[in-house]
Amino acid sequence: MAKHLKGATAVETHSAILDLIRSSGVVSRIELADRSGLTGASISRIVKQLLTEGLIAEVGFGDRTGGKRRTLLQLNARSRHAVGVSLDFASITYLVTDLSGEVIARLDADGIGHEPPGEVITRIAAELAGLVESAGVDRSTLMGIGMAVAGRQDSAHHVLRSNPQADDWELFDIEETLSSATDLAVVVENDSTCAAIGEFWVGRIPASADFATVYMATGFGLGLVTNGDIYRGSSSNVGEIGHMVLDVHGPPCWCGSQGCLEMLAAPARIVERALEQPGLADELGLQGEPGTIRQDAERVARAAAADHEQALPVIEESAFYLSRALVSVTNLLDLDQIILAGPGFGAAGEIYLRRIWQDLERLSFVRAVHPTKVGLSKSSDISAALGAASLVLHSRLTPHQTSSRMALAAR
Amino acid sequence: MAKHLKGATAVETHSAILDLIRSSGVVSRIELADRSGLTGASISRIVKQLLTEGLIAEVGFGDRTGGKRRTLLQLNARSRHAVGVSLDFASITYLVTDLSGEVIARLDADGIGHEPPGEVITRIAAELAGLVESAGVDRSTLMGIGMAVAGRQDSAHHVLRSNPQADDWELFDIEETLSSATDLAVVVENDSTCAAIGEFWVGRIPASADFATVYMATGFGLGLVTNGDIYRGSSSNVGEIGHMVLDVHGPPCWCGSQGCLEMLAAPARIVERALEQPGLADELGLQGEPGTIRQDAERVARAAAADHEQALPVIEESAFYLSRALVSVTNLLDLDQIILAGPGFGAAGEIYLRRIWQDLERLSFVRAVHPTKVGLSKSSDISAALGAASLVLHSRLTPHQTSSRMALAAR
Repeated sequence: MAKHLKGATAVETHSAILDLIRSSGVVSRIELADRSGLTGASISRIVKQLLTEGLIAEVGFGDRTGGKRRTLLQLNARSRHAVGVSLDFASITYLVTDLSGEVIARLDADGIGHEPPGEVITRIAAELAGLVESAGVDRSTLMGIGMAVAGRQDSAHHVLRSNPQADDWELFDIEETLSSATDLAVVVENDSTCAAIGEFWVGRIPASADFATVYMATGFGLGLVTNGDIYRGSSSNVGEIGHMVLDVHGPPCWCGSQGCLEMLAAPARIVERALEQPGLADELGLQGEPGTIRQDAERVARAAAADHEQALPVIEESAFYLSRALVSVTNLLDLDQIILAGPGFGAAGEIYLRRIWQDLERLSFVRAVHPTKVGLSKSSDISAALGAASLVLHSRLTPHQTSSRMALAAR
Repeated sequence: MAKHLKGATAVETHSAILDLIRSSGVVSRIELADRSGLTGASISRIVKQLLTEGLIAEVGFGDRTGGKRRTLLQLNARSRHAVGVSLDFASITYLVTDLSGEVIARLDADGIGHEPPGEVITRIAAELAGLVESAGVDRSTLMGIGMAVAGRQDSAHHVLRSNPQADDWELFDIEETLSSATDLAVVVENDSTCAAIGEFWVGRIPASADFATVYMATGFGLGLVTNGDIYRGSSSNVGEIGHMVLDVHGPPCWCGSQGCLEMLAAPARIVERALEQPGLADELGLQGEPGTIRQDAERVARAAAADHEQALPVIEESAFYLSRALVSVTNLLDLDQIILAGPGFGAAGEIYLRRIWQDLERLSFVRAVHPTKVGLSKSSDISAALGAASLVLHSRLTPHQTSSRMALAAR
């Protein structure tokens, strides 16, 4: 049942129209009226305000309709900027993006390692200031900093929890400390959720889609975007797809279960399987150390992508398990679209994509009702940081409408 | 971050306050102001209107605070009624409930069998009219009919799809036909989603909970309620937990996958396992026919509940697989609470409950952050019909706030 925007507040209406312009790319006032159910007069008034704020721009003319040429509108990409940071043990990636999510500047720096949190934050503030200055971005256009982190979170305190490599961070308030150090708004979110909101924003996915991103780095994570907003769950810990049980009598997982996806398909398992192949470790230069899992797995993935006859089955096995996990997720959540993102899909993403696409078409429970689209992120290596920047754009420009019930609950 | 109700529209605010009264049971104006963030004056105005509409009633006085006695408010249960219908091949259950979800009248009638849809609807209209009259319910207080159905749905057409036992229903518009026949609003929803909204409404679960109901009848379904509203997915087909892959190399499922939960734990599997036990079929009077699966499974469940040494391991095996599926679901969705509902949990629900409770406490990924509560429905045999009635109450009295984005999408 279509409900129009008539009952919405002014802020909600502005957000919705801005979001419609974002997902449309280029659009006329008449199309906006048509798609939103608002009157032409209302659209004109809102568009005028968005133009005044500099958030959108007129970019030429479309077809004539009834003798009148349609002025076309799009986001004014360079009017605002966001910073995205991906915080990792081994590396920190910084991005500055414009309003459309396009990357303006990038810096890869040393990871957090065993450096005390306070010192890391001081360094981040300095590295960020340098990047913004060298990119020639006016600080007054910066809307804030988004930060992607791994590990379990406690949303009430905005901290990392139980990240085995970063105990010092457990009770450390990143948002507060970094905000003080930079004088910018800071928002912290887990990496897979960041990746999801990034694909949503940059990929112009319409707000009506029920959409998930599978993020693969050391392990797996799933980010969910439904009704144009992030689905976070009870404690912001949604998306532990790595701990879905796929082989209930399978090998024990460190989480306590058996046969979790992570045990069967994550980079550590890829490396383990590769080391079992005679001569493969030497041929690919695998080191087989705990600290080299991601690099080793990437070498196996690159070889598989080049049809290496020992490496290909190893990646195909990983793809098989991930694919079956995604069939379960699709059957459970009735998704429209899944995007594969993160560094784990950098080299052999196509192998995963093909397997998942084939399985969903053949096995998804709702295949008779609608297809489930699957795609590969165009920016796998920076998904988390790009998503963190998008999170700033998304939360500042099209704040979702916190329902009254959520409002009541949040108190 | 707490957002208050100040930006909400009048309808949203009224809904939220009514919902707060529902979930509180009994509550004072001061408590409502405190929990909602609205001023005392706003609360007084809203409460006055809800009293005028007869939706709530003043029911006495609470403690003195500062010399003033607090007047207590609660839903005026008998001011409105709803009808819930559970449509099944073997039986149709009708319920009339009051505003609090309490059952006023019940009728169990013949199932739809192979009767043509048009004739079934005519019969339903007649049986319903008889039930409402015999219960002495004033027709003007009826808010509508909710109908719980099994099988895949196409939300655009409000019809059953691909229900193997009911092909005639595939293109039949139940909502339209029954609404014409009864002159009441009709809403159709799948049985597991109905069960979820029923537990939410009747069980006074707060709108802030991320909450799921597992519904077990012939197969399994999962209903999700998040932020006080049903999560339906792309095509209203959310919740096919029966087709989550638990044993990826396990037995083939009719859906095309292998090792689906349904193959490992549903009533058909319970009966199959029971028939393998020497002498058990004779002892329990199992018939082992395709048409007697639910009755047979219930006999096994009853024996297991009485500690029968052959029946107990059969039900425990089913509980083991369901439990591991729920660990996966909890890890994926970060839930607060799970309720087991539906006829499948009628006899041996406690066995399932114990196993799931133990596994979640031991294996849930977020166990260190928060517990996941598990409970058994108090009305397993009528969960779907009761939920269908609750759906009417919920959708009419506390309509969720369709976001502007959803509104845009729905056009």
